[in-house]
Amino acid sequence: MPVTPADVKAVIENYVKAWGSDDRALLLSLFAVDATWEDPVGTDAHVGPEGVGKFWDFAHEGDSRTLTPKPIRIVACANEGILNFTMEVRSNDGRQGMDLEVTDHFVINDEGKIQTARAFWDESSFSQPDGLEPLG
Amino acid sequence: MPVTPADVKAVIENYVKAWGSDDRALLLSLFAVDATWEDPVGTDAHVGPEGVGKFWDFAHEGDSRTLTPKPIRIVACANEGILNFTMEVRSNDGRQGMDLEVTDHFVINDEGKIQTARAFWDESSFSQPDGLEPLG
Repeated sequence: MPVTPADVKAVIENYVKAWGSDDRALLLSLFAVDATWEDPVGTDAHVGPEGVGKFWDFAHEGDSRTLTPKPIRIVACANEGILNFTMEVRSNDGRQGMDLEVTDHFVINDEGKIQTARAFWDESSFSQPDGLEPLG
Repeated sequence: MPVTPADVKAVIENYVKAWGSDDRALLLSLFAVDATWEDPVGTDAHVGPEGVGKFWDFAHEGDSRTLTPKPIRIVACANEGILNFTMEVRSNDGRQGMDLEVTDHFVINDEGKIQTARAFWDESSFSQPDGLEPLG
């Protein structure tokens, strides 16, 4: 049975929670075993929980960074959803940082798992937060 | 040859211009002959210039409304693009109105035309502008 827009919103809220609480296991649990994740769109997809996990580790640069998503808007249409958010990337010592504005598009399968995730951002999506140095 | 992100941005800017200047012919010229347009995602697609034109007429309710898109962010990735915007819908007498926040996703074909357009919005995307009555 197809999922509902309410189901889609719940998955997206858990996706935000996983990043914001540094919960790698929660993030991986949201993806289908054959999920694909393009980040950004136009690059090779990460596939399945193994690919998603590797991308998580890459983004955290060996646990030296925190990534906190600040949601701007969540929209659900049938079994698809959009998450507009700013990803606040910070070094663990709090001295360096970068903000990245992202539009994520998700397709949720009948089991309530993310089947495809596609992140839209380009060179215009970056900004340097006041008072922080650029990420090294 | 695939289009570039700069081409994608130019198409999206023309899309905004067509709505904002009430230019139906310009809008139609941006779509492929076999384009599909879902608005919102999850409903039946409008197909080709004929379908797009009918949807334009429906949205303008027989020329009794103006629809002005206020872009928030345009992103281009390879031959795809995202337009986050607020559509300001107003009655021609200026007394009634509604704002609708939309995330549009476009795929641009090798000829630089919109192949697919998909508009994401739901019941949480509407707001009532100050000082205006609800649309009749």
